[in-house]
Amino acid sequence: MFTFRPIGYARTPYKNTQQVPKGLGAKQEAEGVLEILPEFEAGLTDIEGFSHLIVIWVFDRSEGFELIGTPPSDNRPHGVFAARSPRRPNPIGLTVVELLRRDGTRLHVRGVDMLDGTPILDLKPYLSSIPFEKLRRGWLAEAEARTRK
Amino acid sequence: MFTFRPIGYARTPYKNTQQVPKGLGAKQEAEGVLEILPEFEAGLTDIEGFSHLIVIWVFDRSEGFELIGTPPSDNRPHGVFAARSPRRPNPIGLTVVELLRRDGTRLHVRGVDMLDGTPILDLKPYLSSIPFEKLRRGWLAEAEARTRK
Repeated sequence: MFTFRPIGYARTPYKNTQQVPKGLGAKQEAEGVLEILPEFEAGLTDIEGFSHLIVIWVFDRSEGFELIGTPPSDNRPHGVFAARSPRRPNPIGLTVVELLRRDGTRLHVRGVDMLDGTPILDLKPYLSSIPFEKLRRGWLAEAEARTRK
Repeated sequence: MFTFRPIGYARTPYKNTQQVPKGLGAKQEAEGVLEILPEFEAGLTDIEGFSHLIVIWVFDRSEGFELIGTPPSDNRPHGVFAARSPRRPNPIGLTVVELLRRDGTRLHVRGVDMLDGTPILDLKPYLSSIPFEKLRRGWLAEAEARTRK
């Protein structure tokens, strides 16, 4: 067992999960603030140089998990590790955000999809991308193709 | 505080951190196996459709943390949240791997950079990329530019 503590909290426009854009074609354009605890401020040194950050956080209002579930982007069930469902064995969330500016311990970002008050466990710089032509997106691409018909 | 348990373990060629390619231009081409625990097998349903996975894991052999450190890819110090250092407030690692094939609970992958026996906390499908022309990579790009001179 491994125990982690928040390094900060996300401030977002979303008070409940119904407000978060979901499903095929949902765009995550909302702005928010990642409020890092003052004791960790030195760890943010040089973060301004990166355009995008990986935020690792906790689905702290999710309860239990299901190994197979039907995501909002499809009408067919899929395995939890092939989906972004909040009901995971370890309720860890991951979001790539665009860093707009830093104001001390407050990181202003675009692309938040977590609830207001979400505990943040870690931040990492986004360093490289898989070229789009090399990416296969499984059931999600199939669900998109079906809705296009 | 949040407590997580392994959903499986990584089998990799690396017995110690000296063996892991690091620094500028290091390529992660090593193959390995993500051995998922049998109780979570149903969660892997449909994962074969995705070419790349995000693996969230624990630096279980890292001790303590430092908020500012000098990474192997530069000779200048940077904040821990602007780097991929193992010595993090929460020792969580993240690796994007290419899924080569699935054999029951064993996922054969390319691009492992974690030590053999590393506990895995979560798997997520890699769904989208930031276009390369939109990515700024801060001190890392600067360090690369200096070595090119």
